[in-house]
Amino acid sequence: MAHEPGAPLRVALLGCGVVGSAVARMLVTHADDLAARAGRPLELVGVAVRRPQRPRPDVPVDPALFTDDAEGLVARADIVVEVIGGIDPARDLILRAMENGASVVSANKALLAEDGPTLYAAAAEHGVDLYYEAAVAGAIPILRPIRESLTGDHIRRVIGIVNGTTNFVLDKMDVSGAGFAETVEQAQALGYAEADPTADIEGYDAAAKAAILASLAFHTRVASGDVHREGITEVTAADIRAAADMDAVVKLLAICERVESDGVDAVSVRVHPAMIPRSHPLASVREAFNAVFVEADAAGELMFYGRGAGGEPTASAVLGDVVAVARHQVAGGRGPGESAYADLPIVDMGRAVTRYHLSLDVADRPGVLAQVAAAFAEHGVSIEAVRQQAAPEEDGRARLIVVTHRAPDAALSATVDSLAALDAVDDVAAVMRVEGA
Amino acid sequence: MAHEPGAPLRVALLGCGVVGSAVARMLVTHADDLAARAGRPLELVGVAVRRPQRPRPDVPVDPALFTDDAEGLVARADIVVEVIGGIDPARDLILRAMENGASVVSANKALLAEDGPTLYAAAAEHGVDLYYEAAVAGAIPILRPIRESLTGDHIRRVIGIVNGTTNFVLDKMDVSGAGFAETVEQAQALGYAEADPTADIEGYDAAAKAAILASLAFHTRVASGDVHREGITEVTAADIRAAADMDAVVKLLAICERVESDGVDAVSVRVHPAMIPRSHPLASVREAFNAVFVEADAAGELMFYGRGAGGEPTASAVLGDVVAVARHQVAGGRGPGESAYADLPIVDMGRAVTRYHLSLDVADRPGVLAQVAAAFAEHGVSIEAVRQQAAPEEDGRARLIVVTHRAPDAALSATVDSLAALDAVDDVAAVMRVEGA
Repeated sequence: MAHEPGAPLRVALLGCGVVGSAVARMLVTHADDLAARAGRPLELVGVAVRRPQRPRPDVPVDPALFTDDAEGLVARADIVVEVIGGIDPARDLILRAMENGASVVSANKALLAEDGPTLYAAAAEHGVDLYYEAAVAGAIPILRPIRESLTGDHIRRVIGIVNGTTNFVLDKMDVSGAGFAETVEQAQALGYAEADPTADIEGYDAAAKAAILASLAFHTRVASGDVHREGITEVTAADIRAAADMDAVVKLLAICERVESDGVDAVSVRVHPAMIPRSHPLASVREAFNAVFVEADAAGELMFYGRGAGGEPTASAVLGDVVAVARHQVAGGRGPGESAYADLPIVDMGRAVTRYHLSLDVADRPGVLAQVAAAFAEHGVSIEAVRQQAAPEEDGRARLIVVTHRAPDAALSATVDSLAALDAVDDVAAVMRVEGA
Repeated sequence: MAHEPGAPLRVALLGCGVVGSAVARMLVTHADDLAARAGRPLELVGVAVRRPQRPRPDVPVDPALFTDDAEGLVARADIVVEVIGGIDPARDLILRAMENGASVVSANKALLAEDGPTLYAAAAEHGVDLYYEAAVAGAIPILRPIRESLTGDHIRRVIGIVNGTTNFVLDKMDVSGAGFAETVEQAQALGYAEADPTADIEGYDAAAKAAILASLAFHTRVASGDVHREGITEVTAADIRAAADMDAVVKLLAICERVESDGVDAVSVRVHPAMIPRSHPLASVREAFNAVFVEADAAGELMFYGRGAGGEPTASAVLGDVVAVARHQVAGGRGPGESAYADLPIVDMGRAVTRYHLSLDVADRPGVLAQVAAAFAEHGVSIEAVRQQAAPEEDGRARLIVVTHRAPDAALSATVDSLAALDAVDDVAAVMRVEGA
């Protein structure tokens, strides 16, 4: 990309939905500041959409810039902004842009989590930038801090609330005491959940973001398929109450951590609901906000908090990347690329180390606690706390609340099965992992 | 700096106190990771200290590396890490390093806030990096997010808890109800306050950090001397109780905001104690933790939270910068430099727009509220809320708690003087600004 000094950098925008139109607006309204900060004007040279003729009164650009020829547009850009989402045609367009020497800014978590390494390799081959801050936690600067600010440190653990829909639903359940289905309907009515909320409530969206976070934090290739994933569809009002009873809240967490497995350094990457104490900084993340909590050897505990979705917040992250890659083009270099040098093995969920909360309905007679304790011991699981709940529902029955110490998830899961098989145990409920203690 | 491919980058460390020794330890213990991330090994070639002979068992480097010849050391480095602090000789050593073509990483907030532009100009002239993430809020990545991640956005306001000592003192006063002097002694005994705590409790440290934050956020030169500064020495247990009565806490805040003054865009930069509601994310920042709250047009509200001081957390930020500048040297470029293109005027404190809380001891008789209200009206100040406190201390007296709307600080200050002059007013107490509502 040879340019006269001061010649504008040509920006192509692929997609003009809620994020794309915010990006277009900001490119126009902030043009002077963007030029001063990038070192050159940024000129929007086209917007690829499916229906170029459609009126778009909220996008203040020349209607002639809209085109359905995305490939043609990509060929005449220095910087390509991809906010189409999904795998195809986004992947091909990004690869083509990089072949042409353009840098790419993308918000496409699904693509990056499924096939990031192909894209990173192409960026390295063609000496261009591929930046994607907007793909995880919207406006919150989290990928750049992990990739650059914390790169002199050893990250031990990243725990994120990275899906606004599920956080909104769980927060409302906590506040109102209502059930899951009812709360999802409410979230849909308020625009916080989509008509088909599967990607959010089943944890697919969070799993893609977990894969991206883990890859950067641990310099290891982690794809969506490597992430153990459980959504929030089975979280009940009773689970939320059980959490409240131990002064905790239920959150859908994306957890990326370094673990030692059979004496070997490895990583565990998983998405599941978990109870966290109300005193934990993540517990105060309300409504549809996102936050990412990072623990590093030297830095200690850090948290990054803000809006994880929405047109303008996502566009803020996109434009930060656009200016960054523009600066690199002006200076004639590129930013730090991806690295997977550490190449750590990824442990399966059974070998991840977690803690469990469970609620047991048992016969209220001598010897029952001994049987229950034996079931834990059989699987090598230590109990951190056990208490009998004040008001059992019928005579002769009691409710035991148990919180375990850390143990391999498979041992905890097997313990639950053993408990369920005991004659003295009527029900094993509110089985949920506990994090952040 | 010409190098063979793969030749180590030579790192010189200036200073070996609590931060410097942590930097030295991490350079040694993380050497393999740092080399993989930087693209070249980082070799510690010397540590400049006043007493090179002194045994330093906690710094695992060859004792022969210690030298009192800082200038000689600087001349043979690719990257100079300055953790001496203070103005001299740090400034000369940094300038000399840059003249020699070395990039510089510094944690020196005082120097950057006093004479940053001289250093930035030298970095630009010599085509080297000057990075200083560790200078503000220790381990928390905040300068890079402001300079890079949010550079496509318009930052409206930055509010930081950037001094751990004062936050520790105010938090303890909130929890214990104790007074200021007693709590400072306790903080000193626990190592959270220095023997001479002036720089912290009088707000000098926070003012230097405010200057750095405002310069980056608003692309405008702001020096320590431009920052309105009030410390916490006059915060009383009664003020803390008054805050608690309105469900607020007292924090020492570094506030950088865009304002409009006489129709012109300008900035206000100030450090003072203020009441903030307990529901605000900054209110939950306890003990010696730091946090920076950022409001931007598109991103909305963001918060960055973590440890603001200490050897290891500060070293984490220093080493992140070391790897960043090393990557630039390997790739043959430099990162984005400072810019002051916006060059906004800085308004004096009287024209900053704030809100006040005040507590008035008044005669409990008809007409007094009218006189009080007239004093506010005289200065054009609107009252947001006024309430009479339940238990006046003596018969015939009452206590009025007043919270104002936003008004120029000079008008609020003049209102306090007018109120104090009223016959019916015995005392004007708990006068404190209110933020974050």
